[in-house]
Amino acid sequence: MSLTAEIISVGTELLLGETINSDAAMISKELADLGIDVFHHSAVGDNRGRIKEIFQTALNRSDIIIFTGGLGPTYDDITKSTIAEQLNLKLEKKEEIIEDIKRYFKNKAKDMPPNNELQALIPQGATVLKNDWGTAPGVMIEHENKKIFMLPGPPFECKNMMKERVVPILSKISEKALVSRYIRIIGRTESETELLLSDIMTKGVNPTVAPYVKDGEILVRVTASAKTKDEAFKLTEPTVKEIEKILGSSIYAIDIDSPEEVLVNLLKQKKITISCAESCTGGGIAHKITAVAGASNIFPGGIVSYSEEIKENILGVDPKIISSFGVVSKETAEAMAKKCCELFKTDIAIGVTGYAGPTFGENDSAGHVFISIFYNEKNTTGEFHFLGTRERVRNKAIKQALKMAIEQIK
Amino acid sequence: MSLTAEIISVGTELLLGETINSDAAMISKELADLGIDVFHHSAVGDNRGRIKEIFQTALNRSDIIIFTGGLGPTYDDITKSTIAEQLNLKLEKKEEIIEDIKRYFKNKAKDMPPNNELQALIPQGATVLKNDWGTAPGVMIEHENKKIFMLPGPPFECKNMMKERVVPILSKISEKALVSRYIRIIGRTESETELLLSDIMTKGVNPTVAPYVKDGEILVRVTASAKTKDEAFKLTEPTVKEIEKILGSSIYAIDIDSPEEVLVNLLKQKKITISCAESCTGGGIAHKITAVAGASNIFPGGIVSYSEEIKENILGVDPKIISSFGVVSKETAEAMAKKCCELFKTDIAIGVTGYAGPTFGENDSAGHVFISIFYNEKNTTGEFHFLGTRERVRNKAIKQALKMAIEQIK
Repeated sequence: MSLTAEIISVGTELLLGETINSDAAMISKELADLGIDVFHHSAVGDNRGRIKEIFQTALNRSDIIIFTGGLGPTYDDITKSTIAEQLNLKLEKKEEIIEDIKRYFKNKAKDMPPNNELQALIPQGATVLKNDWGTAPGVMIEHENKKIFMLPGPPFECKNMMKERVVPILSKISEKALVSRYIRIIGRTESETELLLSDIMTKGVNPTVAPYVKDGEILVRVTASAKTKDEAFKLTEPTVKEIEKILGSSIYAIDIDSPEEVLVNLLKQKKITISCAESCTGGGIAHKITAVAGASNIFPGGIVSYSEEIKENILGVDPKIISSFGVVSKETAEAMAKKCCELFKTDIAIGVTGYAGPTFGENDSAGHVFISIFYNEKNTTGEFHFLGTRERVRNKAIKQALKMAIEQIK
Repeated sequence: MSLTAEIISVGTELLLGETINSDAAMISKELADLGIDVFHHSAVGDNRGRIKEIFQTALNRSDIIIFTGGLGPTYDDITKSTIAEQLNLKLEKKEEIIEDIKRYFKNKAKDMPPNNELQALIPQGATVLKNDWGTAPGVMIEHENKKIFMLPGPPFECKNMMKERVVPILSKISEKALVSRYIRIIGRTESETELLLSDIMTKGVNPTVAPYVKDGEILVRVTASAKTKDEAFKLTEPTVKEIEKILGSSIYAIDIDSPEEVLVNLLKQKKITISCAESCTGGGIAHKITAVAGASNIFPGGIVSYSEEIKENILGVDPKIISSFGVVSKETAEAMAKKCCELFKTDIAIGVTGYAGPTFGENDSAGHVFISIFYNEKNTTGEFHFLGTRERVRNKAIKQALKMAIEQIK
């Protein structure tokens, strides 16, 4: 029997859409790894009645309830007091927590504001979960064979509290481990992928196979459960191999989180260096590449040549190319990639020029982008018409550029 | 009387933590602007029983129910059929939807896979909401004075369907408008801010005043409701002025979404150009600046000088500075900013060098960052020890650099 958990996020800012509930996703991932089933996420505002209502529902259906948010020092932070009230527990002030909070402020060379004392009130009999990443301590209450956790809302604190405080407690009581593996697809739609995998998808329940879309990419997830992580991983192996056989070259990565990781690993493996000359992506490609730890081994640098002058004077693109073909053209993208390779002395270089929008160029419209990869003394160039907002066009161009570089190196 | 709405997101990927529920935040924001109160968010998996359960609860407490997700072409996309079953409505195949989907694939030079026909099944009597951004049409059902919407899950489709299809319907029936304004604070904690504002916070309910933390920044939100947006805005005015008086120079922006917008607007206003030389932030500052439409007027470009060679050979930092003081030092950051100003011929430049982690430098630890602003022939430099992961350190450094540039120009 699996344990079931649910997550209740408290905060009016969630219901106003000011904050995206990333805590729920992070906690769910940790619980999935422990083989604990999550069947419900909820969010409610800073309202005692509605917090109590959802808490009661949760008590009736889940073994583990994890609250996030509402532990701050301000008067609308009411999670602890509401839950204590519902369970008929008094709040007790813990002096050692006040000392912790004072120390936290001292490290920041500040005095503790008096209202932070609110954070030292803990329901009687509860276990305090020490917060080394902020001022609000977490709480665990054990009630009728159920475990109720309260964690601070700010994502950085919540993540560390979950990993360092909650997971060690739950891993002792969970008898299951879950492993999910991700197969990344290029050049096929979700429904094509499903058609190809339909036999394998209906075959069994452990592992399960499901294609889905994330950030405009198709992923196939293979999930298995067993007593240990190792056993679960082994269970996925034959299925992953079967999928590799069926999808073949449509697969560009397995078990890797992102195209930038695929690219950096590939470059390291082959001892190839890369640089990039960016216009409309404005440094986004360099930023992605350098997001991968150890990128310094394969990435000496890049240039954001946003204006024509910079493209010509620093990068060294021939002004005649720009005046004859236009700044957004195949020829300019190719020259940018080639010159970038020379300037940064790398084996491969990416050149990107385009209109990100929302304003329009003279002859071209927003979303029109050229991406060129210069490698082995030749250019490979693509022309794209990306749809959507400025942000979306830029993100798509970044992803496409990384994938084109991967393809060229492969 | 306000209308109440709730959002139910369907998809096992949410409960496994593979997808962050950004749709719920986006929809909530749109509803808030319409003066419609949102009291609940929920997420459930692709499970008929649990979808029906939460739907029944929602029918008992909300006027408007918005589902997201589960409208795709695969066999686990069950939102429409489950809701239809619960309301005793048959599903009907709409030929015109099949034509739309075929056209969508044709535009991508592909044939429609047969399982996409599933998306053309619509509950009888329902209104089809045309999807111009993907294959899954939306649906609206009117049931006992309540409106039930079903929107596709992928964020780009969901956003456009909400703005273009749902908002026009709801704006006709809502009799309230809400305006929220955001005051951005620098150099004060959340509880200090609350202490200073305690009088004003307890004063009334329209507008309401609430400080909160977002992405490591303190914001104060002032929210008013009225019959029209203009009236609501006017109601916020005296309160915003009062807060300006109380917090004074701790406020660095009002009604602006992000530090990069503040910076770009300020630069445009003052006709000042900027460039940046980045090491550990890896192009992130340039990427933020160019995220603001119209940045090309004030940003000719920047360099990602990740390796020492690039810092010396392209940017022109004196090798003696790096060898004497180290690559992560005040002196190197200052030289980077100064040389960047010269190379890109801008009025102001940002230089950043540091260790993003997770590996450690020889004498310095991850999170140690120097940021220098070169302006009016002089450097202003800060030394920072940012906590957290590589991603967090980089994000904090980017934000800090933008804020330092704002301060210098102001």
